Amino acid sequence: MLGTGPVGQTMAAKLAELGHDVTVGTRSVADAMARSEPDTFGNPPFSEWVGQHPQVAVAALADAAAIGELVVNATNGAGSLEALEAAGEENLARKVLVDIANPLDFSQGMPPSLTVSNTDSLGEQIQRRFPDTRVVKTLNTANAYLMVDPKQLAGGDHTMFVSGNDPEAKATVRELLRQFGWSDIIDLGGISTARGSEMYLPLWLRIMGSIENPMFNIKVVR
Amino acid sequence: MLGTGPVGQTMAAKLAELGHDVTVGTRSVADAMARSEPDTFGNPPFSEWVGQHPQVAVAALADAAAIGELVVNATNGAGSLEALEAAGEENLARKVLVDIANPLDFSQGMPPSLTVSNTDSLGEQIQRRFPDTRVVKTLNTANAYLMVDPKQLAGGDHTMFVSGNDPEAKATVRELLRQFGWSDIIDLGGISTARGSEMYLPLWLRIMGSIENPMFNIKVVR
Repeated sequence: MLGTGPVGQTMAAKLAELGHDVTVGTRSVADAMARSEPDTFGNPPFSEWVGQHPQVAVAALADAAAIGELVVNATNGAGSLEALEAAGEENLARKVLVDIANPLDFSQGMPPSLTVSNTDSLGEQIQRRFPDTRVVKTLNTANAYLMVDPKQLAGGDHTMFVSGNDPEAKATVRELLRQFGWSDIIDLGGISTARGSEMYLPLWLRIMGSIENPMFNIKVVR
Repeated sequence: MLGTGPVGQTMAAKLAELGHDVTVGTRSVADAMARSEPDTFGNPPFSEWVGQHPQVAVAALADAAAIGELVVNATNGAGSLEALEAAGEENLARKVLVDIANPLDFSQGMPPSLTVSNTDSLGEQIQRRFPDTRVVKTLNTANAYLMVDPKQLAGGDHTMFVSGNDPEAKATVRELLRQFGWSDIIDLGGISTARGSEMYLPLWLRIMGSIENPMFNIKVVR
C-alpha cells in the first residue's frame, strides 16, 4: 500500500482484515512515525494508526513495492508519479498496480480541479511511465469507507468501475473488489477510460457539497 | 427550442405533447427545411419531423428566442455560443435559458473530449456572455429519450441534476423536469457546478461503450 493517508490506512486495514499480508510504504518511515500532530484534515497521526494495526508492516516506498505481489497507489494524485518513481520502476515491473488516486488540484481553492483531464488521465500517465506494470484504475469514485465496504450503503446496490489494458490484471482486481463486497462492476475498457472515472470527480465533489455527506455512490441504472 | 437535431426534436415534441406552445429555432428555416437527406447519424431530415409535428412552429433563431417565455439550448455544444449570439442577447434577456448542451469535441475522434472543462464550463461561458439571462444547466447527463421520459427506465428511480445562479429559474426548471417525470432532482448549486455535470460526459460515453446501450442513467444512492 503506497500512501499513508486516510485512504491508504482504510484500505490497508481492510486488506489485513481479509487475511492479506500488508506493508504500507511511505517516503520516510522515520518521518512518518515521528509526526505526532493530526493531519490538515484532523485525522490522527499515522503512528497512532500503526499502533492500532500491529499486523500491518511499514516500510520505505521502494521496500514496500519490492515486497508487494500487488501494489496499490493510494498516494495523493498530484504527487503519485513522483512517489511511484521513489517506489522504483523495477520493483513495480510486471506487477498489478491498483491506482485508486485522483489527480486533484487544490491550488485554486475548493472544490479542487484536476491536474490532468480531458485528453489524458493520471491512470494513463502512470501506465506510460511504467510500461511493464499492469495498471488498473478503480475505486477512485467512492469515499474510502465505501471503497472497502460497499454493502454498508443500500446493501451494495451501486456501481464500481475498472479500467486497464491487461485483462488478467483486471480479473485479479475484480476478485479483490468482490472480497470488499462489490457486485456491480463495469469494465470501462483500456486504461484511457480512466479519463471517464477521474473526470467524474468534479461531479462527485459537487454532489457531496449538495447532499453534505460523502457516503454516497452512483448506481448505473440500465 | 434552439436546435433542430434529435435532442431538440425529442424535447420539442414532448413539450408540445404536454400542452406547451413550442417554436423550434434554426439558423435558416429555408436551409433546414430544404434538406432531404438523413443526417450524419442516419436520422431522418428535419422537414420530415416537422411534417409529423404540425403543432410545432419553426422560425429563425432570433424569432424563436423572441417568442419564447422559456428558451432551451439544444444546439451542438461546440457551436452554442455562436447560435445564442444569433438568437440575440436582447431576445434572451431576463428569460430562463435551459442549457442541455454538452461541449463535445469530435475533432480528435471517438469518444469525443470536451471543448471546455475543469476550470470552466459551457454553462458558465453562456452565463458570462449573457449576464441578464438566467441560465440553468440540466438534462445534459441523459440520452434524449430518457430526458423527457425518465419513467421508462426503472420507473424513474434515477437522478437528474440542476445548476444555476437564480433560485426562481431553477424552481421553474424543476417544475418542467417534474412534468417530464423526474422525481430525484439534485440542485448542485450555482452555474459553476455545471463543470460537474459536463465533466461526467466522458464517463457517460465510456459506460455507453461498455454496456452498448445509451438508455441508462445514474442514480445517486445515499
